[in-house]
Amino acid sequence: MKKGIFYAVGVGSGDPMDMTLKARDILEKADVIIIPVKKKGKCSIAYQIAVQAANMEQAEKIEMVFPMKPKTDYRVNLRNEAMQSIYQALDAGKTVAMVTLGDVSVYSTATYVRQILKMNGYETKVVAGIPSFCSGAAKAQQSLCENGESLMVMPGVISKESVDSTLERFDNILIMKAGKAMKWLIPLLESRGLLNNTIMFQNVGMQNEYIGTPKNGEQSYFTTLLIKKGGLL
Amino acid sequence: MKKGIFYAVGVGSGDPMDMTLKARDILEKADVIIIPVKKKGKCSIAYQIAVQAANMEQAEKIEMVFPMKPKTDYRVNLRNEAMQSIYQALDAGKTVAMVTLGDVSVYSTATYVRQILKMNGYETKVVAGIPSFCSGAAKAQQSLCENGESLMVMPGVISKESVDSTLERFDNILIMKAGKAMKWLIPLLESRGLLNNTIMFQNVGMQNEYIGTPKNGEQSYFTTLLIKKGGLL
Repeated sequence: MKKGIFYAVGVGSGDPMDMTLKARDILEKADVIIIPVKKKGKCSIAYQIAVQAANMEQAEKIEMVFPMKPKTDYRVNLRNEAMQSIYQALDAGKTVAMVTLGDVSVYSTATYVRQILKMNGYETKVVAGIPSFCSGAAKAQQSLCENGESLMVMPGVISKESVDSTLERFDNILIMKAGKAMKWLIPLLESRGLLNNTIMFQNVGMQNEYIGTPKNGEQSYFTTLLIKKGGLL
Repeated sequence: MKKGIFYAVGVGSGDPMDMTLKARDILEKADVIIIPVKKKGKCSIAYQIAVQAANMEQAEKIEMVFPMKPKTDYRVNLRNEAMQSIYQALDAGKTVAMVTLGDVSVYSTATYVRQILKMNGYETKVVAGIPSFCSGAAKAQQSLCENGESLMVMPGVISKESVDSTLERFDNILIMKAGKAMKWLIPLLESRGLLNNTIMFQNVGMQNEYIGTPKNGEQSYFTTLLIKKGGLL
Protein backbone atom coordinates (compact mmCIF):
# COMPACT_ATOMS: atom_id res chain seq x y z
CA MET A 1 0.00 0.00 0.00
CA LYS A 2 1.19 3.51 -0.78
CA LYS A 3 2.23 5.28 2.40
CA GLY A 4 0.57 8.52 3.46
CA ILE A 5 2.19 11.96 3.55
CA PHE A 6 2.99 13.94 6.68
CA TYR A 7 2.39 17.71 6.50
CA ALA A 8 3.78 20.20 9.00
CA VAL A 9 1.33 23.08 8.71
CA GLY A 10 2.02 26.62 9.96
CA VAL A 11 -1.21 28.23 11.13
CA GLY A 12 0.08 31.74 11.94
CA SER A 13 0.32 33.21 15.38
CA GLY A 14 -3.18 34.04 16.54
CA ASP A 15 -5.64 35.42 14.01
CA PRO A 16 -7.25 32.47 12.16
CA MET A 17 -7.61 34.74 9.09
CA ASP A 18 -3.79 34.75 8.93
CA MET A 19 -3.92 31.09 7.89
CA THR A 20 -3.06 30.48 4.25
CA LEU A 21 -5.44 28.97 1.71
CA LYS A 22 -3.08 25.97 1.49
CA ALA A 23 -2.99 25.44 5.25
CA ARG A 24 -6.78 25.36 5.42
CA ASP A 25 -7.00 23.06 2.43
CA ILE A 26 -4.50 20.52 3.82
CA LEU A 27 -6.07 20.55 7.30
CA GLU A 28 -9.57 20.00 5.88
CA LYS A 29 -8.40 17.04 3.77
CA ALA A 30 -6.19 15.36 6.39
CA ASP A 31 -7.26 12.03 7.90
CA VAL A 32 -5.31 12.61 11.09
CA ILE A 33 -4.51 15.89 12.86
CA ILE A 34 -1.53 15.99 15.22
CA ILE A 35 -2.05 18.50 18.01
CA PRO A 36 1.06 19.64 19.91
CA VAL A 37 0.45 20.26 23.61
CA LYS A 38 2.70 21.11 26.52
CA LYS A 39 0.98 18.60 28.84
CA LYS A 40 -1.50 15.78 28.23
CA GLY A 41 -5.00 17.26 28.09
CA LYS A 42 -3.72 20.87 27.93
CA CYS A 43 -5.12 23.18 25.29
CA SER A 44 -3.11 23.71 22.10
CA ILE A 45 -2.88 27.28 20.85
CA ALA A 46 -2.08 26.16 17.30
CA TYR A 47 -5.19 23.93 17.21
CA GLN A 48 -7.37 26.67 18.70
CA ILE A 49 -6.32 28.94 15.84
CA ALA A 50 -6.77 26.29 13.14
CA VAL A 51 -10.19 25.13 14.27
CA GLN A 52 -11.61 28.63 13.85
CA ALA A 53 -10.83 28.62 10.12
CA ALA A 54 -10.69 24.98 9.04
CA ASN A 55 -13.30 22.22 9.36
CA MET A 56 -11.43 19.25 10.82
CA GLU A 57 -14.47 17.45 12.28
CA GLN A 58 -13.96 14.27 10.29
CA ALA A 59 -10.30 13.82 11.15
CA GLU A 60 -8.89 11.69 13.94
CA LYS A 61 -7.06 13.90 16.49
CA ILE A 62 -3.85 12.81 18.20
CA GLU A 63 -2.24 14.85 20.97
CA MET A 64 1.53 15.04 20.99
CA VAL A 65 3.30 16.25 24.12
CA PHE A 66 6.12 18.75 23.67
CA PRO A 67 7.10 19.66 27.21
CA MET A 68 9.08 22.86 27.76
CA LYS A 69 11.70 20.81 29.62
CA PRO A 70 11.82 17.60 27.60
CA LYS A 71 14.32 15.71 29.72
CA THR A 72 12.14 13.31 31.72
CA ASP A 73 11.55 9.72 30.55
CA TYR A 74 7.86 9.95 31.28
CA ARG A 75 7.41 12.77 28.80
CA VAL A 76 9.66 11.21 26.17
CA ASN A 77 7.47 8.10 26.40
CA LEU A 78 4.35 10.16 25.81
CA ARG A 79 5.94 11.63 22.69
CA ASN A 80 7.04 8.21 21.45
CA GLU A 81 3.49 6.92 21.80
CA ALA A 82 2.28 9.70 19.51
CA MET A 83 5.09 8.94 17.01
CA GLN A 84 3.89 5.31 16.89
CA SER A 85 0.39 6.50 16.04
CA ILE A 86 1.82 8.65 13.23
CA TYR A 87 3.75 5.68 11.78
CA GLN A 88 0.60 3.55 11.89
CA ALA A 89 -1.50 6.19 10.15
CA LEU A 90 1.10 6.80 7.42
CA ASP A 91 1.59 3.05 6.91
CA ALA A 92 -2.17 2.77 6.40
CA GLY A 93 -1.94 5.35 3.61
CA LYS A 94 -3.49 8.16 5.64
CA THR A 95 -2.66 11.86 5.33
CA VAL A 96 -1.35 13.25 8.61
CA ALA A 97 -1.15 17.00 9.30
CA MET A 98 0.46 18.60 12.34
CA VAL A 99 -0.67 22.09 13.29
CA THR A 100 2.18 24.42 14.21
CA LEU A 101 2.09 27.91 15.69
CA GLY A 102 3.47 30.64 13.42
CA ASP A 103 5.72 29.38 10.63
CA VAL A 104 7.17 25.87 10.50
CA SER A 105 10.73 27.07 9.81
CA VAL A 106 11.02 29.53 12.70
CA TYR A 107 11.65 27.96 16.14
CA SER A 108 9.20 25.16 15.52
CA THR A 109 8.77 21.80 17.22
CA ALA A 110 7.42 20.28 13.99
CA THR A 111 10.96 20.19 12.59
CA TYR A 112 11.80 17.49 15.14
CA VAL A 113 8.90 15.24 14.10
CA ARG A 114 9.50 15.80 10.40
CA GLN A 115 13.18 14.87 10.67
CA ILE A 116 12.44 11.60 12.47
CA LEU A 117 9.84 10.69 9.85
CA LYS A 118 12.20 11.52 7.00
CA MET A 119 14.97 9.41 8.53
CA ASN A 120 12.50 6.55 8.63
CA GLY A 121 11.70 6.89 4.93
CA TYR A 122 8.34 8.67 5.09
CA GLU A 123 7.34 11.47 2.72
CA THR A 124 7.01 14.82 4.48
CA LYS A 125 5.95 18.29 3.34
CA VAL A 126 5.94 21.73 4.93
CA VAL A 127 3.22 24.38 4.58
CA ALA A 128 4.56 27.83 5.48
CA GLY A 129 2.68 30.06 7.94
CA ILE A 130 2.90 33.72 8.91
CA PRO A 131 5.63 34.02 11.58
CA SER A 132 4.64 35.99 14.68
CA PHE A 133 7.13 38.76 13.85
CA CYS A 134 5.38 39.39 10.52
CA SER A 135 1.91 39.53 12.06
CA GLY A 136 3.26 41.74 14.86
CA ALA A 137 4.93 44.10 12.39
CA ALA A 138 1.72 44.23 10.34
CA LYS A 139 -0.41 45.16 13.36
CA ALA A 140 2.13 47.75 14.48
CA GLN A 141 2.57 48.98 10.88
CA GLN A 142 6.34 48.80 11.23
CA SER A 143 8.69 47.51 8.57
CA LEU A 144 11.20 44.88 9.68
CA CYS A 145 13.78 45.90 7.07
CA GLU A 146 13.96 48.25 4.11
CA ASN A 147 16.38 48.84 1.22
CA GLY A 148 19.91 47.89 2.31
CA GLU A 149 19.04 47.24 5.96
CA SER A 150 19.65 43.99 7.78
CA LEU A 151 17.35 42.19 10.23
CA MET A 152 18.62 40.08 13.09
CA VAL A 153 16.27 37.51 14.62
CA MET A 154 17.38 36.09 17.94
CA PRO A 155 15.73 34.28 20.86
CA GLY A 156 15.54 35.86 24.32
CA VAL A 157 17.41 32.91 25.79
CA ILE A 158 20.58 34.35 24.29
CA SER A 159 23.08 36.12 26.59
CA LYS A 160 23.03 39.83 27.47
CA GLU A 161 26.51 40.24 25.96
CA SER A 162 25.35 38.74 22.69
CA VAL A 163 22.31 41.06 22.49
CA ASP A 164 24.49 44.03 23.41
CA SER A 165 27.02 43.43 20.62
CA THR A 166 24.15 42.84 18.17
CA LEU A 167 22.58 46.19 19.16
CA GLU A 168 25.91 47.80 18.40
CA ARG A 169 26.23 46.35 14.91
CA PHE A 170 22.85 45.89 13.23
CA ASP A 171 19.95 48.01 11.92
CA ASN A 172 16.91 46.06 13.04
CA ILE A 173 16.77 43.44 15.77
CA LEU A 174 13.93 41.09 16.66
CA ILE A 175 14.17 39.40 20.05
CA MET A 176 11.67 36.56 20.18
CA LYS A 177 10.49 34.66 23.28
CA ALA A 178 11.72 37.71 25.21
CA GLY A 179 9.35 37.26 28.20
CA LYS A 180 11.91 36.16 30.77
CA ALA A 181 14.65 38.43 29.41
CA MET A 182 12.69 41.69 29.82
CA LYS A 183 14.22 42.37 33.25
CA TRP A 184 17.67 42.85 31.71
CA LEU A 185 16.54 43.89 28.23
CA ILE A 186 14.85 47.11 29.38
CA PRO A 187 17.90 48.47 31.26
CA LEU A 188 20.14 47.42 28.35
CA LEU A 189 17.97 49.27 25.81
CA GLU A 190 17.81 52.29 28.11
CA SER A 191 21.58 52.39 28.51
CA ARG A 192 21.97 52.39 24.74
CA GLY A 193 19.27 55.05 24.29
CA LEU A 194 17.17 52.61 22.26
CA LEU A 195 14.04 52.29 24.39
CA ASN A 196 12.15 54.78 22.21
CA ASN A 197 13.23 52.81 19.13
CA THR A 198 11.65 49.63 20.48
CA ILE A 199 8.16 48.22 20.17
CA MET A 200 6.83 45.16 21.96
CA PHE A 201 4.51 42.60 20.32
CA GLN A 202 2.77 40.31 22.79
CA ASN A 203 0.26 37.49 22.17
CA VAL A 204 -0.31 38.82 18.66
CA GLY A 205 -3.77 37.99 17.33
CA MET A 206 -4.79 36.47 20.66
CA GLN A 207 -7.23 37.78 23.29
CA ASN A 208 -4.65 39.54 25.44
CA GLU A 209 -2.73 41.08 22.53
CA TYR A 210 -0.48 44.03 23.36
CA ILE A 211 1.46 46.11 20.87
CA GLY A 212 3.27 49.14 22.22
CA THR A 213 5.98 50.42 24.53
CA PRO A 214 8.04 47.62 26.14
CA LYS A 215 6.75 46.57 29.56
CA ASN A 216 9.02 45.91 32.51
CA GLY A 217 9.20 42.68 34.50
CA GLU A 218 8.67 39.10 33.38
CA GLN A 219 6.30 38.87 30.43
CA SER A 220 4.37 36.22 28.48
CA TYR A 221 6.33 33.60 26.52
CA PHE A 222 4.92 35.09 23.31
CA THR A 223 6.72 38.40 23.68
CA THR A 224 8.79 39.83 20.84
CA LEU A 225 10.77 43.07 20.79
CA LEU A 226 11.46 44.92 17.54
CA ILE A 227 14.33 47.39 17.87
CA LYS A 228 14.80 49.75 14.93
CA LYS A 229 17.97 51.78 15.24
CA GLY A 230 16.85 54.10 12.45
CA GLY A 231 13.71 54.86 14.46
CA LEU A 232 10.17 53.47 14.51
CA LEU A 233 7.86 54.51 11.67
CA MET B 1 -18.03 61.65 4.06
CA LYS B 2 -16.05 59.02 5.93
CA LYS B 3 -12.72 58.42 4.23
CA GLY B 4 -11.79 54.97 2.93
CA ILE B 5 -9.08 52.72 4.33
CA PHE B 6 -5.84 51.81 2.55
CA TYR B 7 -4.66 48.21 2.93
CA ALA B 8 -1.15 47.04 2.07
CA VAL B 9 -1.68 43.35 1.36
CA GLY B 10 1.12 40.76 1.28
CA VAL B 11 0.27 38.04 -1.24
CA GLY B 12 3.21 35.68 -0.63
CA SER B 13 6.01 35.02 -3.06
CA GLY B 14 4.63 32.86 -5.85
CA ASP B 15 2.14 30.15 -4.98
CA PRO B 16 -1.37 31.72 -4.83
CA MET B 17 -2.32 29.10 -2.20
CA ASP B 18 0.23 30.80 0.09
CA MET B 19 -2.11 33.80 0.30
CA THR B 20 -3.86 34.18 3.64
CA LEU B 21 -7.61 34.03 4.13
CA LYS B 22 -7.48 37.70 5.18
CA ALA B 23 -5.55 38.77 2.09
CA ARG B 24 -8.09 37.14 -0.21
CA ASP B 25 -10.96 38.60 1.75
CA ILE B 26 -9.63 42.16 1.64
CA LEU B 27 -8.74 41.98 -2.07
CA GLU B 28 -12.18 40.64 -2.99
CA LYS B 29 -13.91 43.44 -1.06
CA ALA B 30 -11.69 46.32 -2.21
CA ASP B 31 -13.09 48.99 -4.54
CA VAL B 32 -9.67 49.85 -5.94
CA ILE B 33 -6.62 47.61 -6.41
CA ILE B 34 -3.20 49.24 -6.62
CA ILE B 35 -0.83 47.23 -8.79
CA PRO B 36 2.90 47.94 -8.40
CA VAL B 37 4.85 47.67 -11.66
CA LYS B 38 8.44 48.39 -12.64
CA LYS B 39 7.42 50.15 -15.85
CA LYS B 40 4.10 51.43 -17.19
CA GLY B 41 2.28 48.51 -18.82
CA LYS B 42 4.70 45.90 -17.42
CA CYS B 43 3.28 42.83 -15.72
CA SER B 44 3.12 42.79 -11.91
CA ILE B 45 4.18 39.56 -10.22
CA ALA B 46 2.22 40.39 -7.07
CA TYR B 47 -0.97 40.92 -9.09
CA GLN B 48 -0.39 37.73 -11.10
CA ILE B 49 -0.26 35.79 -7.83
CA ALA B 50 -3.28 37.50 -6.30
CA VAL B 51 -5.54 37.14 -9.34
CA GLN B 52 -5.17 33.35 -9.25
CA ALA B 53 -6.73 33.15 -5.80
CA ALA B 54 -8.91 36.26 -5.41
CA ASN B 55 -11.76 37.51 -7.57
CA MET B 56 -10.99 41.20 -8.17
CA GLU B 57 -13.07 41.61 -11.35
CA GLN B 58 -15.31 44.34 -9.95
CA ALA B 59 -12.51 46.53 -8.63
CA GLU B 60 -10.92 49.46 -10.41
CA LYS B 61 -7.23 48.74 -11.12
CA ILE B 62 -4.55 51.43 -10.85
CA GLU B 63 -0.96 50.79 -11.87
CA MET B 64 1.75 52.35 -9.73
CA VAL B 65 5.27 52.59 -11.07
CA PHE B 66 8.11 51.60 -8.73
CA PRO B 67 11.18 51.80 -10.94
CA MET B 68 14.32 49.97 -9.81
CA LYS B 69 16.23 53.26 -10.15
CA PRO B 70 13.72 55.85 -8.93
CA LYS B 71 15.80 58.98 -9.53
CA THR B 72 14.32 60.42 -12.73
CA ASP B 73 11.62 63.09 -12.66
CA TYR B 74 9.59 61.30 -15.30
CA ARG B 75 9.18 58.25 -13.08
CA VAL B 76 8.51 60.25 -9.94
CA ASN B 77 5.72 61.99 -11.85
CA LEU B 78 4.19 58.65 -12.80
CA ARG B 79 4.18 57.64 -9.15
CA ASN B 80 2.68 60.93 -8.04
CA GLU B 81 -0.15 60.48 -10.54
CA ALA B 82 -1.00 57.14 -8.94
CA MET B 83 -0.84 58.73 -5.45
CA GLN B 84 -3.37 61.34 -6.59
CA SER B 85 -5.72 58.56 -7.68
CA ILE B 86 -5.35 56.90 -4.26
CA TYR B 87 -6.20 60.18 -2.46
CA GLN B 88 -9.28 60.62 -4.65
CA ALA B 89 -10.49 57.08 -4.04
CA LEU B 90 -9.99 57.33 -0.26
CA ASP B 91 -11.65 60.77 -0.14
CA ALA B 92 -14.64 59.20 -1.90
CA GLY B 93 -14.87 56.63 0.91
CA LYS B 94 -13.54 53.76 -1.18
CA THR B 95 -11.45 50.84 0.12
CA VAL B 96 -8.06 50.72 -1.58
CA ALA B 97 -5.83 47.63 -1.48
CA MET B 98 -2.28 47.43 -2.77
CA VAL B 99 -0.93 43.99 -3.65
CA THR B 100 2.62 43.39 -2.41
CA LEU B 101 4.97 40.51 -3.13
CA GLY B 102 5.88 38.40 -0.08
CA ASP B 103 5.29 40.12 3.25
CA VAL B 104 4.60 43.85 3.65
CA SER B 105 7.21 44.30 6.41
CA VAL B 106 10.17 42.72 4.60
CA TYR B 107 11.83 44.91 1.93
CA SER B 108 8.50 46.14 0.60
CA THR B 109 7.63 49.15 -1.53
CA ALA B 110 4.21 49.39 0.08
CA THR B 111 5.80 50.87 3.21
CA TYR B 112 6.59 54.00 1.21
CA VAL B 113 2.99 54.49 0.08
CA ARG B 114 1.57 53.70 3.49
CA GLN B 115 3.82 56.25 5.21
CA ILE B 116 2.84 59.06 2.83
CA LEU B 117 -0.85 58.28 3.33
CA LYS B 118 -0.44 58.18 7.10
CA MET B 119 1.36 61.54 7.11
CA ASN B 120 -1.59 62.93 5.19
CA GLY B 121 -4.06 61.70 7.78
CA TYR B 122 -5.48 58.64 6.03
CA GLU B 123 -6.22 55.36 7.82
CA THR B 124 -3.93 52.53 6.73
CA LYS B 125 -3.72 48.83 7.59
CA VAL B 126 -1.28 46.06 6.83
CA VAL B 127 -2.13 42.45 5.98
CA ALA B 128 0.87 40.16 6.53
CA GLY B 129 1.99 37.72 3.82
CA ILE B 130 4.35 34.76 3.74
CA PRO B 131 7.87 36.16 3.16
CA SER B 132 9.85 34.44 0.39
CA PHE B 133 12.35 33.05 2.88
CA CYS B 134 9.56 31.18 4.70
CA SER B 135 8.10 29.71 1.50
CA GLY B 136 11.62 28.81 0.33
CA ALA B 137 12.46 27.13 3.64
CA ALA B 138 9.14 25.23 3.50
CA LYS B 139 9.82 23.91 -0.01
CA ALA B 140 13.38 22.98 0.92
CA GLN B 141 12.20 21.55 4.28
CA GLN B 142 14.91 23.48 6.08
CA SER B 143 14.44 25.27 9.38
CA LEU B 144 15.59 28.89 9.50
CA CYS B 145 16.36 28.78 13.23
CA GLU B 146 15.88 26.35 16.09
CA ASN B 147 16.17 26.50 19.90
CA GLY B 148 18.78 29.11 20.86
CA GLU B 149 19.94 29.85 17.30
CA SER B 150 19.89 33.26 15.68
CA LEU B 151 18.89 34.16 12.12
CA MET B 152 20.42 37.03 10.20
CA VAL B 153 18.49 38.44 7.24
CA MET B 154 20.49 40.70 4.94
CA PRO B 155 20.16 41.97 1.38
CA GLY B 156 22.71 41.02 -1.30
CA VAL B 157 23.49 44.70 -1.88
CA ILE B 158 25.48 44.66 1.34
CA SER B 159 29.31 44.60 1.14
CA LYS B 160 31.45 41.46 0.97
CA GLU B 161 33.17 42.46 4.22
CA SER B 162 29.85 42.74 5.99
CA VAL B 163 28.71 39.30 4.80
CA ASP B 164 32.08 37.83 5.76
CA SER B 165 31.99 39.07 9.34
CA THR B 166 28.36 37.90 9.62
CA LEU B 167 29.36 34.41 8.45
CA GLU B 168 31.96 34.42 11.19
CA ARG B 169 29.53 35.32 13.97
CA PHE B 170 26.06 33.89 13.37
CA ASP B 171 24.31 30.51 13.12
CA ASN B 172 21.96 30.98 10.20
CA ILE B 173 22.19 33.64 7.50
CA LEU B 174 19.68 34.54 4.80
CA ILE B 175 20.99 36.65 1.94
CA MET B 176 18.04 38.02 -0.02
CA LYS B 177 18.10 39.60 -3.50
CA ALA B 178 21.44 37.78 -3.90
CA GLY B 179 21.30 37.56 -7.75
CA LYS B 180 24.01 40.09 -8.54
CA ALA B 181 26.18 39.15 -5.54
CA MET B 182 26.54 35.46 -6.48
CA LYS B 183 29.83 36.08 -8.30
CA TRP B 184 31.55 37.02 -5.03
CA LEU B 185 29.29 35.05 -2.67
CA ILE B 186 30.23 31.63 -4.07
CA PRO B 187 34.03 32.12 -3.67
CA LEU B 188 33.44 33.62 -0.21
CA LEU B 189 31.37 30.62 0.92
CA GLU B 190 33.93 28.25 -0.57
CA SER B 191 36.79 29.96 1.24
CA ARG B 192 34.92 29.55 4.54
CA GLY B 193 34.05 25.92 3.79
CA LEU B 194 30.31 26.78 3.88
CA LEU B 195 29.22 25.96 0.32
CA ASN B 196 27.83 22.58 1.39
CA ASN B 197 25.95 24.32 4.20
CA THR B 198 24.18 26.59 1.73
CA ILE B 199 20.94 26.19 -0.20
CA MET B 200 19.64 28.55 -2.90
CA PHE B 201 15.95 29.46 -3.25
CA GLN B 202 15.12 31.05 -6.60
CA ASN B 203 11.76 32.28 -7.96
CA VAL B 204 9.98 30.30 -5.21
CA GLY B 205 6.49 29.23 -6.25
CA MET B 206 6.96 30.65 -9.74
CA GLN B 207 7.37 28.80 -13.07
CA ASN B 208 11.16 28.74 -13.06
CA GLU B 209 11.55 27.84 -9.38
CA TYR B 210 14.90 26.41 -8.34
CA ILE B 211 15.78 25.09 -4.90
CA GLY B 212 19.16 23.47 -4.51
CA THR B 213 22.93 23.93 -4.65
CA PRO B 214 23.97 27.60 -5.21
CA LYS B 215 24.52 28.43 -8.87
CA ASN B 216 27.45 30.49 -10.08
CA GLY B 217 27.23 33.72 -12.10
CA GLU B 218 24.60 36.45 -12.04
CA GLN B 219 21.19 35.10 -11.03
CA SER B 220 17.55 36.24 -10.95
CA TYR B 221 16.59 39.14 -8.64
CA PHE B 222 14.50 36.69 -6.61
CA THR B 223 17.46 34.67 -5.37
CA THR B 224 17.94 33.93 -1.67
CA LEU B 225 20.74 31.99 -0.02
CA LEU B 226 20.24 30.19 3.28
CA ILE B 227 23.52 29.39 5.02
CA LYS B 228 23.26 27.08 8.03
CA LYS B 229 26.55 26.80 9.86
CA GLY B 230 25.24 23.83 11.87
CA GLY B 231 24.57 22.03 8.57
CA LEU B 232 21.54 21.64 6.32
CA LEU B 233 18.83 19.22 7.47
